Amino acid sequence: MSHWHDRRLLDLFRIETPILLAPMAGSGGSALAIAVAKAGGLGSIPCASISVEKATEEVAIFRGAVAAPLNLNFFAHQPKAPTDADHARWLSRLAPYFKEFAVDPAGLAAAGGRAPFDDAMCRMVEALKPEVVSFHFGLPAKDLLARVHATGAKIVGTATTVAEGRWLAERGVHAVIAQGNEAGGHRGNFLTDDMATQPGLFALVPQMADALPVPVIAAGAIADGRGLAAALTLGASAVQIGTAYLLSDESVSVPVHKAAVKQARDDNTAVTNVLTGRPARGVINRIMREIGPLSPDALPFPLAGGALAPMRAATEKQGHGDFQPLWSGQAGALAREGNAESITRHIAEQAAALQ
Amino acid sequence: MSHWHDRRLLDLFRIETPILLAPMAGSGGSALAIAVAKAGGLGSIPCASISVEKATEEVAIFRGAVAAPLNLNFFAHQPKAPTDADHARWLSRLAPYFKEFAVDPAGLAAAGGRAPFDDAMCRMVEALKPEVVSFHFGLPAKDLLARVHATGAKIVGTATTVAEGRWLAERGVHAVIAQGNEAGGHRGNFLTDDMATQPGLFALVPQMADALPVPVIAAGAIADGRGLAAALTLGASAVQIGTAYLLSDESVSVPVHKAAVKQARDDNTAVTNVLTGRPARGVINRIMREIGPLSPDALPFPLAGGALAPMRAATEKQGHGDFQPLWSGQAGALAREGNAESITRHIAEQAAALQ
Repeated sequence: MSHWHDRRLLDLFRIETPILLAPMAGSGGSALAIAVAKAGGLGSIPCASISVEKATEEVAIFRGAVAAPLNLNFFAHQPKAPTDADHARWLSRLAPYFKEFAVDPAGLAAAGGRAPFDDAMCRMVEALKPEVVSFHFGLPAKDLLARVHATGAKIVGTATTVAEGRWLAERGVHAVIAQGNEAGGHRGNFLTDDMATQPGLFALVPQMADALPVPVIAAGAIADGRGLAAALTLGASAVQIGTAYLLSDESVSVPVHKAAVKQARDDNTAVTNVLTGRPARGVINRIMREIGPLSPDALPFPLAGGALAPMRAATEKQGHGDFQPLWSGQAGALAREGNAESITRHIAEQAAALQ
Repeated sequence: MSHWHDRRLLDLFRIETPILLAPMAGSGGSALAIAVAKAGGLGSIPCASISVEKATEEVAIFRGAVAAPLNLNFFAHQPKAPTDADHARWLSRLAPYFKEFAVDPAGLAAAGGRAPFDDAMCRMVEALKPEVVSFHFGLPAKDLLARVHATGAKIVGTATTVAEGRWLAERGVHAVIAQGNEAGGHRGNFLTDDMATQPGLFALVPQMADALPVPVIAAGAIADGRGLAAALTLGASAVQIGTAYLLSDESVSVPVHKAAVKQARDDNTAVTNVLTGRPARGVINRIMREIGPLSPDALPFPLAGGALAPMRAATEKQGHGDFQPLWSGQAGALAREGNAESITRHIAEQAAALQ
């Protein structure tokens, strides 16, 4: 594989192909990670919404299947405690749905999961020694980060602006993901909440590559060899791909999610906060259309989704994704079916031919 | 110049370098067009906000200076007549500024200029026979378009989504500009007003290239050879560049505009409708921050700017661009000073070396 001119990330991560699997909670697990690793890319396990036990199990499955480096991904958000007034405002915003679906809002369970990186997760990292640890929504506290560093793991952070990239580089990450506005799923923004100023990948990658002393990984709307080759030309050293794997054999996305990605167009996704409380890009559904895509009333992450659960359950059964995340980037239409190892190899070969 | 693999637009426009000068009212005229043409690209004259007489003069200057094809650009919007209530709402929204700047809103002049393509402009095209005619905001009425076709001019339209690209191709344009969300100035959108779903260039170009039977011109955040090479890799046959010329010797941008571009970052522009009534990307200024960037109260294009004129005049004199368009794409930070011919040659050479 001599066609990759920039070997910085290949050497850092000890991979053969400059493709990282985007960690996708609810869509990707060990099977997808194994497939991407077999093709020479970097597999990842999204650990933010599963237990330490489950994550440990996933890592064991990966280690048993392939001798390749692995990336564990965690969230590093600062949880905000909503006031009673915040709760009341959100429930009142959703009142028409509670009426339509005969839901008693008094009986709602809180939205669980999606905890920030903590001591227990850090102990897991110390025990399992993943080759790469990546964080979304900034970085964990200094002492936790130092402990991850001490394991020898390469540390990766996500930036949606050059300013965030500089912030991460100053704190010692080994590489920065430049997440363009096109990207599916949660935006990694942590220094700004302003969605009106988020740069697209075409603007972000060269400016980030010029500004940072560490290699840049491009993410957002990269779904084929054209995207990989173009990102490298813009100055990225590798790419992170998510949406393009959602229809693969190894994807564990629920059927309504896969159906939405099959209907994805360049212009039918939006960044919304009404599904989880943080901005994330997905295919537009009823709740995004009717009370979003961005609402000041949404409870803080990850709590906004809790109150949607009964409506989600009712509509998902009927084959509609009206009240749940249908995460997708703006290139969902380029996602292909098949096994993820072949998809990865095909993207790499197409890019190599274009270089 | 054998390093351009895709010669479709080079042959169509009879140019040597796959770079089109973006028509920029208020920033570019014959001098900039001549410079880009001398470097082998396609020069353009923005005709939408100048008189037929002035445009005719500009074309004569271009023809006298260089033997090269020329692109005349026009707007094709459907003007909307605001009601008295619309006027009252906009003036009421601006009332605090009228007070601060001691302006009597009764004495405001209507915002003029920016007329859609009409019979007089069409007669100019028939007389001057520009090699390329491009339209923003859709296309003019069938009979006018047929008259332009009959002159032998190659016709170019701008699309912000694949759907708009298909619409243009079905109506016989020879090429389509894929305007990514990163692009500076007015968005060309005409089938949708929804700014939340506008695709970034990385997503738009490959999907547009796959969908259209005509060549695609990429526009938005392309400011150096990396951008040109990456756009061609994604499937574009050429690029259109605007912001990267704003600091050139031939740019006629006012000083506050140039100063804003010098301060541009990846994350300090936004798409706003408060300056003209249509969504356009520029460096964030006071009026965008305080009542925008998008406001439902703005008068329809091009009328919103009229009421801002007194505040603009007062602040511009003090060296501030608080109430005027500071159009810039998301790669304004990559704009360089110098003559536009050298800038163009440099971009082309850098891209050729990266191919």
